[in-house]
Amino acid sequence: MSSDISISELVANYKKGYSLDQQFYKDPEIYKKEIENIFLHHWILAGHSSQIPETGDFFLFEFDSENIIITRTKTGDIRAHLNVCRHRGSRVCLEKKGTTKAFTCPYHAWSYDLSGDLIAARIMNETFDKSENGLHQAHVALVGGLIFISLSEKPPSLEEMKKDLADVFDQFGFDHMKLIKQKSYPIRSNWKLAVENYQECYHCAPSHQEFAKIHAMAMTPEKFAARKQDYLKNASSDIRLKPSSYYFDQAIKGQEGYQYDRNPLVTGKVSGSLNGGPVAPLLGKIKDYDGAASEFMVGPVTFFLIYNDHMIGYRFLPLSLDECVCDVFWFVHEDAQENKDYVLDNLTWLWDVTTQADEEIIVNNQKGVDSHFYQPGKLSEMEFFQQHFLNWYLDKIA
Amino acid sequence: MSSDISISELVANYKKGYSLDQQFYKDPEIYKKEIENIFLHHWILAGHSSQIPETGDFFLFEFDSENIIITRTKTGDIRAHLNVCRHRGSRVCLEKKGTTKAFTCPYHAWSYDLSGDLIAARIMNETFDKSENGLHQAHVALVGGLIFISLSEKPPSLEEMKKDLADVFDQFGFDHMKLIKQKSYPIRSNWKLAVENYQECYHCAPSHQEFAKIHAMAMTPEKFAARKQDYLKNASSDIRLKPSSYYFDQAIKGQEGYQYDRNPLVTGKVSGSLNGGPVAPLLGKIKDYDGAASEFMVGPVTFFLIYNDHMIGYRFLPLSLDECVCDVFWFVHEDAQENKDYVLDNLTWLWDVTTQADEEIIVNNQKGVDSHFYQPGKLSEMEFFQQHFLNWYLDKIA
Amino acid sequence: MSSDISISELVANYKKGYSLDQQFYKDPEIYKKEIENIFLHHWILAGHSSQIPETGDFFLFEFDSENIIITRTKTGDIRAHLNVCRHRGSRVCLEKKGTTKAFTCPYHAWSYDLSGDLIAARIMNETFDKSENGLHQAHVALVGGLIFISLSEKPPSLEEMKKDLADVFDQFGFDHMKLIKQKSYPIRSNWKLAVENYQECYHCAPSHQEFAKIHAMAMTPEKFAARKQDYLKNASSDIRLKPSSYYFDQAIKGQEGYQYDRNPLVTGKVSGSLNGGPVAPLLGKIKDYDGAASEFMVGPVTFFLIYNDHMIGYRFLPLSLDECVCDVFWFVHEDAQENKDYVLDNLTWLWDVTTQADEEIIVNNQKGVDSHFYQPGKLSEMEFFQQHFLNWYLDKIA
Repeated sequence: MSSDISISELVANYKKGYSLDQQFYKDPEIYKKEIENIFLHHWILAGHSSQIPETGDFFLFEFDSENIIITRTKTGDIRAHLNVCRHRGSRVCLEKKGTTKAFTCPYHAWSYDLSGDLIAARIMNETFDKSENGLHQAHVALVGGLIFISLSEKPPSLEEMKKDLADVFDQFGFDHMKLIKQKSYPIRSNWKLAVENYQECYHCAPSHQEFAKIHAMAMTPEKFAARKQDYLKNASSDIRLKPSSYYFDQAIKGQEGYQYDRNPLVTGKVSGSLNGGPVAPLLGKIKDYDGAASEFMVGPVTFFLIYNDHMIGYRFLPLSLDECVCDVFWFVHEDAQENKDYVLDNLTWLWDVTTQADEEIIVNNQKGVDSHFYQPGKLSEMEFFQQHFLNWYLDKIA
Repeated sequence: MSSDISISELVANYKKGYSLDQQFYKDPEIYKKEIENIFLHHWILAGHSSQIPETGDFFLFEFDSENIIITRTKTGDIRAHLNVCRHRGSRVCLEKKGTTKAFTCPYHAWSYDLSGDLIAARIMNETFDKSENGLHQAHVALVGGLIFISLSEKPPSLEEMKKDLADVFDQFGFDHMKLIKQKSYPIRSNWKLAVENYQECYHCAPSHQEFAKIHAMAMTPEKFAARKQDYLKNASSDIRLKPSSYYFDQAIKGQEGYQYDRNPLVTGKVSGSLNGGPVAPLLGKIKDYDGAASEFMVGPVTFFLIYNDHMIGYRFLPLSLDECVCDVFWFVHEDAQENKDYVLDNLTWLWDVTTQADEEIIVNNQKGVDSHFYQPGKLSEMEFFQQHFLNWYLDKIA
Repeated sequence: MSSDISISELVANYKKGYSLDQQFYKDPEIYKKEIENIFLHHWILAGHSSQIPETGDFFLFEFDSENIIITRTKTGDIRAHLNVCRHRGSRVCLEKKGTTKAFTCPYHAWSYDLSGDLIAARIMNETFDKSENGLHQAHVALVGGLIFISLSEKPPSLEEMKKDLADVFDQFGFDHMKLIKQKSYPIRSNWKLAVENYQECYHCAPSHQEFAKIHAMAMTPEKFAARKQDYLKNASSDIRLKPSSYYFDQAIKGQEGYQYDRNPLVTGKVSGSLNGGPVAPLLGKIKDYDGAASEFMVGPVTFFLIYNDHMIGYRFLPLSLDECVCDVFWFVHEDAQENKDYVLDNLTWLWDVTTQADEEIIVNNQKGVDSHFYQPGKLSEMEFFQQHFLNWYLDKIA
């Protein structure tokens, strides 16, 4: 049974190859540290530029107590403003998305332009300096059309990742995708149980029969290795095969962690659909199906799975100590037309059923972790990737 | 970003002319101090004597964890009993209002008379002294028919206020009003954000167009000053003009803080109604409309706005750290008859729409204050009155 | 008014003959101690063997953060497994009741047999020892068909109780009852207010008129003593009369506390029914009605009331600091047939109305106890039994 001990003792007590102590999932002080050291520092997917094509378009992005306005300025740049008036703190923007010329606080009418600069504040005396009272800014980075933000004063660099994976972004046409659906799955659990769930495929065979019919990754390590060898031997793909493993505890110092890999599907399957067949026009410069899919992960809570004809984005965000949300994003080629080139329900089916199943799994995991009798259990070799997350996580909050 | 520091440091760090640090709105220890030093000490409006005209009439008044029975005794006095049985603490009275001969606890039938004295307790041995087990009493003070209570052992005095404003109470006929409606507006925010909102009219023009059409106070300071000068020059009113400013940090030592002022409406308007016209018979000894309204505030959370033909009462109460309630009371001359002398919906319209708008404003203020990126912002000169509240408040919890 | 002081000071400050200080009902640290020292140590009724007649039958039993699988093994034994996977903590069993061959975790498919032994765990390396990874076990004890569990490593002994009351269990046929109904009554209060309420009949006359018509215990002590004397004088019962008082602070060292007593009903009444008449076939070896009922209590939160023709079980469990649940169980002779030998609604009526009334009483007690003005009040002599509970309780958390 757990008892309340200091965070540093808890971290020191962690035994490699095992799951975390209960206290990591229940202690408000640890949660506070996670927000500060992880979520207010690292890069997180906020959305996609296709959501705000025109000047003045905006949408809100939120987690925990934070709310951020993502908007396109007059110069076409994308900016991220904290949705907190510099006067007395009111939300400045109440609409979840829309188009505007300026953000005028509904409380006292302080008005900010699309760049976040304070352009009007009624009846303030001459000592008041508007230039010092613009909306707080988050850093913005674009990866193709993907909008990432960091709330840090000095975020980790994305340069190595961008250089390394330039060929990947080019092959899949990251500059030529559009977001066709986003769905939120609230989960009654600490956010780490959701991220850990995403990091391992030990549960895929028992829990996700739909996924297991398509993805070789659900196989035992031996069978998967054989399938991968087979795939690589015959691979005549125009898509990068070479993996990059600079993620979590393997990240390059000063750089945001990232990961790239390409893995085979089950023999005969070519995309993440009901029968494993094609569901949309090929992405980017890809010329054919090769029976595989790529994974791309960057920052602690943003993961992509790239099929030859569509891309899934996964993002996990804490809402409070014991509640989080999983957002799933579906992307296709920007020229693809609904009901002509793809049918939305077919395209979203696999990851909708899979995420619903995960939501239930994770909630039941949290319930057991809450017990006085929970104790860290031994991980399988199929959970090696989760171990990288755990190593990194413990270092982050130590 | 805020971090948890001691209350005394927080108070010392406060910068005049700015809003409060986030921690004041989120720290359970500070909330506890507020309950003890403010809400269990100062005078609060409980209701109106017209709610309990006859012996045995009662109603319940509640906030935070407190519940108080306001009742009229056999001698016609009004008493305030804590609704907590002296046996094992049960609520003694479960009805929100009614008429009774005695308050008999539903648990073990201990029975208290209208004065709160324990008159019956079954099967208690001879060492038990009924006279030591009456219901705990709150202090009661009447201002005309207004019932104020204080839960302090030694409440601040109301004598100076009563002496000073005797002419006001006489002119408006405080002894001859009746309460015709009370409505509760629950607000998902710390109580201070609601009180601060009431203390300033910087937000009136942007947020309350209905109010701004009637009240000159919504104008810029310059325009308001001109309108006030103009009003005072022509004032032939039979209503007191001289202000009294003994409120919050300006209160007289040992006396409850209070404030009186009379301010003009927009030219041509005479009362707080849809078109600014009359809505009820004139109050007290008032002979005509003079295009103005009086404000009367007493104790930290009770505010009145007195038109020539009706009066509004405002009361803010905490329910928990992050939840409060605004109660609005509408009063008219005791002889006024509904649908003959006034139409309830017309009379309540202005402050119903205004309070609904405030509820939304305040909730959005709380959301932003919760952000790590909220920082105290500079107040406008139109928020000078809020500054008095803040000075007083910080002194109260220091 | 209460202020936060240490638990040991609080315990030391307790004044005998009075109710508890407010802090005992509101302090999360005290609640934590209660869970550890009381609920994870003592014996609690989990259910009845008639709920799981066959091998593989199971039901879940839960309180606070704990969830326990009660199941029947291949040898016919009853076992209690913590519903917490030894891998990463997931709930292993999601169904509230059912029949199974094994408990296979829905997350990663670790599989446990009916005895809780880990029989399959996919893809774990050779250093992993299945025999060390069985489900955690709770101790199980049977009293007739009643299933008790203890989560302690070294639970108090039940031997003295079993020896002492063997005649009682035999007379009432504890081995030949069946559970015919269980109903949960959630209560918005700290669990102790619910247990205290059960421990005293001072409230019976004012609060439970239905009960008071049947049970002499609702009378004043003098009248009850007279009625009891009268009953004992004429008692020709084949049911044990001699009381056993080894409960709460009177428990024998190392033994679980228990209590037995037989008390008269109101003259002319023979069972706990609408008119006090019979409602079901006589239990065990009982040959007739004798106008009395027996009480049997064992462990801190499990109480039985045994009429000649049916038995009621009461169990109180904490769900969180300020929420608990009362479960009521109704038992009859195993041969009794519904609608032939008994009508369920008639049989359950008295304790359903009584428990509903108690739920309201207890919630109103909690509300008053939450007030700053609550203070421990003097107990009546009719609350002497509650005093035993309080003595024991304070010792437990000191």
